[in-house]
Amino acid sequence: MLPKPTPDSRSVYTVHVRFRDTDLMGIVHHAVYLEYFEAARIEYLRRRGAEYVDWTKQGIHLAVAEAHTQYRRPATFGDTLAVEATLVELTGATARFEYRLVRSAPDRELVAEGWTLLVCVGNDNRPRRIPEELAAPLCGPETHPLSPDRQ
Amino acid sequence: MLPKPTPDSRSVYTVHVRFRDTDLMGIVHHAVYLEYFEAARIEYLRRRGAEYVDWTKQGIHLAVAEAHTQYRRPATFGDTLAVEATLVELTGATARFEYRLVRSAPDRELVAEGWTLLVCVGNDNRPRRIPEELAAPLCGPETHPLSPDRQ
Amino acid sequence: MLPKPTPDSRSVYTVHVRFRDTDLMGIVHHAVYLEYFEAARIEYLRRRGAEYVDWTKQGIHLAVAEAHTQYRRPATFGDTLAVEATLVELTGATARFEYRLVRSAPDRELVAEGWTLLVCVGNDNRPRRIPEELAAPLCGPETHPLSPDRQ
Amino acid sequence: MLPKPTPDSRSVYTVHVRFRDTDLMGIVHHAVYLEYFEAARIEYLRRRGAEYVDWTKQGIHLAVAEAHTQYRRPATFGDTLAVEATLVELTGATARFEYRLVRSAPDRELVAEGWTLLVCVGNDNRPRRIPEELAAPLCGPETHPLSPDRQ
Repeated sequence: MLPKPTPDSRSVYTVHVRFRDTDLMGIVHHAVYLEYFEAARIEYLRRRGAEYVDWTKQGIHLAVAEAHTQYRRPATFGDTLAVEATLVELTGATARFEYRLVRSAPDRELVAEGWTLLVCVGNDNRPRRIPEELAAPLCGPETHPLSPDRQ
Repeated sequence: MLPKPTPDSRSVYTVHVRFRDTDLMGIVHHAVYLEYFEAARIEYLRRRGAEYVDWTKQGIHLAVAEAHTQYRRPATFGDTLAVEATLVELTGATARFEYRLVRSAPDRELVAEGWTLLVCVGNDNRPRRIPEELAAPLCGPETHPLSPDRQ
Repeated sequence: MLPKPTPDSRSVYTVHVRFRDTDLMGIVHHAVYLEYFEAARIEYLRRRGAEYVDWTKQGIHLAVAEAHTQYRRPATFGDTLAVEATLVELTGATARFEYRLVRSAPDRELVAEGWTLLVCVGNDNRPRRIPEELAAPLCGPETHPLSPDRQ
Repeated sequence: MLPKPTPDSRSVYTVHVRFRDTDLMGIVHHAVYLEYFEAARIEYLRRRGAEYVDWTKQGIHLAVAEAHTQYRRPATFGDTLAVEATLVELTGATARFEYRLVRSAPDRELVAEGWTLLVCVGNDNRPRRIPEELAAPLCGPETHPLSPDRQ
């Protein structure tokens, strides 16, 4: 039986906007949001005991097959953003995550939303089943919360 | 009367994959495709006499409001990619571009596809009408082709 | 009289390594350290009341003229790094900053060291005197410390 | 006997400045030059039959231990740059490359200069001898020149 996403399939990652993230207008470049999504997603895995780099060494990759972003309000250098990542769908070889970026301070405004479809592939880049020992924790709650200095 | 996209509303830009574009698997990171799309789009404008930086200085920005990408096949360091940018829709304040990335050599394989919705905004980040002197050439053919060393 | 650096000409900025910062080996790409240095330097200015983007709008830029980095130990995804930026020299048109990157946890190891020489330039990219209202706070202590969520 | 650099230990790589390479001032961000140097260096190896990714898979890495850059003139979006990489020193476990960036058109101006010191390390990140089958071609002439579309 394939595990299913639950109300616990959600984590929040904090990102600090760097100067290099911004563009000619002084606002975060639109490609950088995908990096924020990715950081939140890898953190999501880590807090459930799944170290992305370790999986990679075993020849298991979660490759991005499709990505979508809607930009709501500009983020600027110095902003602190909360990136909420939610696992919304899991099939044998794919996982779909949704993201919400909210400015932490001062206004809690929605900055961007998006989703990515991931496909589990091997070293040969062909789709393969997500291993059960990865799928099960993926749907559950955080089991490895971060130390305060990392949050 | 608003100008409309024509069969000439298309340009091809060549991009060379850099090592830093690649990730842990040695393939181009998915966020980088948006940079390739952007380079092709700005080149599209330039070949029609519209220098993006000049427009920015006049307080006219084409901000990305929405972006979508489908990843078909991995691109790796050393690949040369042809990025085809096509203007498919123009309204008073928005422009929609579609993109196709094809590996130039050796196989002409489709690497990725996508689109971006752009909104014309002023320095206050509020939507505003695309100036006519920008809209007209946007729909037409290339008038400023590049010198051979830039193609 | 030109102000001089003091023992207070030092600030520490916290950076969280993102996945996209890392390379094929899973360690932080060497070019990214210059982004960390920059983030720490701009934060240094901000904590002394000098908003970099505001200065840019007034046509005052601190352009990097020379940069040097020594890489001591690899940093990896998920590391929290403390970047110490120290102003060590100020002349009429130049400022020299030194940097030390230390892993916050678990080991306090030195990850990298470096320095950058900055030249004050105008919009014409020609060297010009650093304005006194920028030079004075540059040498002093932090006057605008960050809120807890930003540190 | 350790091979030594020769007058043939030099290659030129062409880089096209992307929009995302530029900063708030519309000029190439200073950290990006290290990416240009790297691209030229990996291309240097490739033209001598040494595929960097293949060496990585065998557990041989050329890690950057020290990097230095002097910025001479700004480069902007759309510039084509010629990056000259020269191997100037080879010891048992280290290699030193020097770089010169020249704008291809219209003016042949020197944009930047720099050097990097590389240390050969294994998967354990400890220094190790550069394998002879890598050292010998490193000092020689190009044996695998690129096809025209890649130059």
